[in-house]
Amino acid sequence: MAASRAEDGHLYGVIMAGGRGTRFWPASRHGRPKQLLPILGDRPLLRLAVERLLPLVPPERILIVTGADLASAVKSIVPELPKENLLLEPEGRNTAPCIGWAALHLRQRAGDPVMAVLPADHLIRDAVEFRRLLEAAAAWAEKGDRLVTLAIRPAYPETGYGYIDLGACCGHVRSVPVHRVAGFREKPDRVTAESFLRAGTFFWNSGIFVWKTSTILKAIQEHLPGLHQGLQGLQKALSKGRADEAKRLFRQLQAISIDYGVIEKAEAVYAIQAAFGWDDVGSWAAVYDQISKDARGNASRGDLIALQSTGCLVDAPDKLVALVGVQDLIVVDTGDALLVCRRDKSQQVREIVEVLKRERGGQCL
Amino acid sequence: MAASRAEDGHLYGVIMAGGRGTRFWPASRHGRPKQLLPILGDRPLLRLAVERLLPLVPPERILIVTGADLASAVKSIVPELPKENLLLEPEGRNTAPCIGWAALHLRQRAGDPVMAVLPADHLIRDAVEFRRLLEAAAAWAEKGDRLVTLAIRPAYPETGYGYIDLGACCGHVRSVPVHRVAGFREKPDRVTAESFLRAGTFFWNSGIFVWKTSTILKAIQEHLPGLHQGLQGLQKALSKGRADEAKRLFRQLQAISIDYGVIEKAEAVYAIQAAFGWDDVGSWAAVYDQISKDARGNASRGDLIALQSTGCLVDAPDKLVALVGVQDLIVVDTGDALLVCRRDKSQQVREIVEVLKRERGGQCL
Repeated sequence: MAASRAEDGHLYGVIMAGGRGTRFWPASRHGRPKQLLPILGDRPLLRLAVERLLPLVPPERILIVTGADLASAVKSIVPELPKENLLLEPEGRNTAPCIGWAALHLRQRAGDPVMAVLPADHLIRDAVEFRRLLEAAAAWAEKGDRLVTLAIRPAYPETGYGYIDLGACCGHVRSVPVHRVAGFREKPDRVTAESFLRAGTFFWNSGIFVWKTSTILKAIQEHLPGLHQGLQGLQKALSKGRADEAKRLFRQLQAISIDYGVIEKAEAVYAIQAAFGWDDVGSWAAVYDQISKDARGNASRGDLIALQSTGCLVDAPDKLVALVGVQDLIVVDTGDALLVCRRDKSQQVREIVEVLKRERGGQCL
Repeated sequence: MAASRAEDGHLYGVIMAGGRGTRFWPASRHGRPKQLLPILGDRPLLRLAVERLLPLVPPERILIVTGADLASAVKSIVPELPKENLLLEPEGRNTAPCIGWAALHLRQRAGDPVMAVLPADHLIRDAVEFRRLLEAAAAWAEKGDRLVTLAIRPAYPETGYGYIDLGACCGHVRSVPVHRVAGFREKPDRVTAESFLRAGTFFWNSGIFVWKTSTILKAIQEHLPGLHQGLQGLQKALSKGRADEAKRLFRQLQAISIDYGVIEKAEAVYAIQAAFGWDDVGSWAAVYDQISKDARGNASRGDLIALQSTGCLVDAPDKLVALVGVQDLIVVDTGDALLVCRRDKSQQVREIVEVLKRERGGQCL
């Protein structure tokens, strides 16, 4: 049974790889975003996302939605992907247009398959468990009008994530319990996050969704009718080969997240509890937490000499780095830029990007 | 009177520029030592040392003693120096051989001029006062068998300098009081340094000496007879154009400092009190102290964006540097190496150089 979803041809993977995250500057740039970087090891996050899926979904059924300017980089990272499986956005319009477009594309191409929507830039440690739960979610979604999400069992009271409040268990699929979703909660403050953990019903929103193509299109039609109409026009232009018109229409689509625009408003939303070592790798500090470190808590890509220095992450692959008497720093060197940041301030790296946009004419972006 | 020493042709400047200081890594390297670097501004320290002297001593009377491998760099920094004024050591043998060689060279060339021995890599803020005192020292030294040093009025209880204990004033020259030297003291501990300051008679040893050529040669003969003999052989080989033999002989000279080997043992040592903003610029922290800083105490050579960061020195001329939430760091980037060091640990940069020698086969040295 375990491999049946892969073999019956119904499960498609849709990897969202259009992000332009600014928190990994200077390694990440507009044309070289986080998902294309090997920030957790030797392979880019996008490559890890694809490989995690491959035992379950062959390349022919993996779509990657990304920015048009990132196409060649994505192709070189996932060379086994058929050319037509790359959906290229002329600009980022948030997740609802991206997912809607992928759903329309799949409807035209494959009828009404189940699609799993997956972020390209997250960490999942236990890929076997990930695939087990993804298959269960797909089996549940296939049975009808159901939006399914994988809800991550929280490890600590994180204030940077959205939370999903799980209702009672409403059934099982492949021995996996399924819950109704009672509600969604924005990023909480610390006290609220702690109360969420005590309550025990609140889970992290992973951004991983599974549904039939027809189900999500119907939900978009219901909750974002303007977007639905725009997508129809886009699809029509594309099928007629009118590339410029398609670009123009895409740029007019409502820029809104699938969570806010659809999922949080929909009725039949289900969640499967997941515990497979998930992290959204949202900052250099998160990278530090996830990668292996030496006895003094230092981690380095490249040649490092550390004297009286502890707790540092160094990403400077092309040079020798020496640390003397420093603690808990992020040090990232590229050819043209260097970041030295207190580890617990690494969320503020995005402010550097703002300064570059505002005051430096886009230098090093 | 003030310019007479410069005009009568008797004062020579001997700039010692053979150091291989390791505390300015990664900017300084074996083949690019501190005195050749513009670490205090836009000109190398050696250039500053020459320019400080030029109003008093023309290029024809300035000798520079340096390593043979540094010759072309030194020439490009001091293009006005006649070729024959560059004395090239085949290897560093400390200051006594260097000064002895320069003295022999001058005796052969100019009879018995007064020579001022000057380190190439120190900071002197008040060049006018420096020249005033140098002229006074030269006038005092010319009168006979006198070794004269400029003793720096201590600004704080530094433990990294040697001290000179000044005896009573024994006369004046050009209205400048001259003292007998009562003794020399090695680098003191903190408590001792504080007692030195309270005593008021202890001054920093600047390494600036003034004497007649015959006087220092006689003192070397008396206190380091082996070195004196070796220098005679060296001079003979050089005058006969036997370069290889001269190199071999130089390498056999006793490697000892002029302070320890001669001055501290000599009788007729005099000191002139000096207060002209002197610093030996012995570490990155000293550079930080001496250069101009912005309102948050950051100093940078190159493009810097500092968020919530204070007290940092950044030397990375070829790239954009961003600091986030860090305090009191030294950040030095070269093409092949990067140093991140707590400012109050910058003396330990030399340990990095030791590690490179010991464990990395001389990489980045």
